[in-house]
Amino acid sequence: MATIDYPEPVRILITQLKRLPGIGPKSAERIAVWMLQQGKEWSGVFVEAVGGAGRSVVECATCGFFASLERGCAICDGIERDRSRLCVVEQPADILPLERSGAYRGQYHALRGRISPLDNIGPDDLRIAELIERLKEEAFEEVILALRSDVEGEATANYLGEILREFPSLVVSRLAQGMPAGAGLDSADELTLMRALEGRIGVR
Amino acid sequence: MATIDYPEPVRILITQLKRLPGIGPKSAERIAVWMLQQGKEWSGVFVEAVGGAGRSVVECATCGFFASLERGCAICDGIERDRSRLCVVEQPADILPLERSGAYRGQYHALRGRISPLDNIGPDDLRIAELIERLKEEAFEEVILALRSDVEGEATANYLGEILREFPSLVVSRLAQGMPAGAGLDSADELTLMRALEGRIGVR
Repeated sequence: MATIDYPEPVRILITQLKRLPGIGPKSAERIAVWMLQQGKEWSGVFVEAVGGAGRSVVECATCGFFASLERGCAICDGIERDRSRLCVVEQPADILPLERSGAYRGQYHALRGRISPLDNIGPDDLRIAELIERLKEEAFEEVILALRSDVEGEATANYLGEILREFPSLVVSRLAQGMPAGAGLDSADELTLMRALEGRIGVR
Repeated sequence: MATIDYPEPVRILITQLKRLPGIGPKSAERIAVWMLQQGKEWSGVFVEAVGGAGRSVVECATCGFFASLERGCAICDGIERDRSRLCVVEQPADILPLERSGAYRGQYHALRGRISPLDNIGPDDLRIAELIERLKEEAFEEVILALRSDVEGEATANYLGEILREFPSLVVSRLAQGMPAGAGLDSADELTLMRALEGRIGVR
């Protein structure tokens, strides 16, 4: 005898929810059940939120961040922002954490990925040609490579380092590596401790 | 100077995603960014999955599980299912785990909640009148109360126990409490151990 399962439309919904990042089978089921228990009004609001973002948000052709079709890009069109520095990140989502730190008010450039031979992602799959174009056309003084410090991030940073030799007047920098703020020595991994020691700063 | 944030449609999407159960601010942001990086085709499929489930799935008026508008309720309309036993659960989502255990093939009744004075949920807010109606009209021999063993679940079970006195010929049972399968004594909480001891079974 067949086991009872959810009606097909619910199973389709669960399948779609499972595709979302960080959502496992149990979460997908819980969210689907929750969705079904909301009213038609909720469904309309949610569907409009998903569809509306899809319709009116585009990739900014300059920096790669999310831009509004109507209002343009808050970064590239921001008249008060420093135009002498350019911060290169992997993903558009990396921009907001830097922004929230309050320590940077320059321009950004999202590569939309990183070099990863295992995933068949090479330099041509990233927004590197656009980066070079910007460096030629705009008057940047410094490029900050804010890539992750894992194998693919390092490979991408090294590749960009080579490319940037074409612009000898540019200062090229990378984020400091070391102890996270407030973290104890007992919770730090060996690589972090090693880099914190290597990068130690004299105090007197 | 204003900090950069996502365009408004993205913020609306994040707000909606944060409302989903188990989704915190970081997950909502990650899911929103992922959604924006999918194409228009994905957006259509996803929106249709949410909307389609909302349109074509209804609460079965008999058992409270999810029924398809077109195909009816897989439980109540299942011709091979045992009609002598009725298992009472809190939520429709509680039905599938029981079903997957393979140990039960009877009917179900989802109360769609439990008695919880703190949340202002009393017996009249649950599907108890529908339960009594079924007990009067259908020929059940046993009612299994498969409610959670927390304060509200116990209160609901006790309340139903009183109500069911009206049907003296019915066998009324509850799920056994004890050690989860394969669990070690060191990982069990005191209440579970207490109940496992109280409910111990002679082996010779």
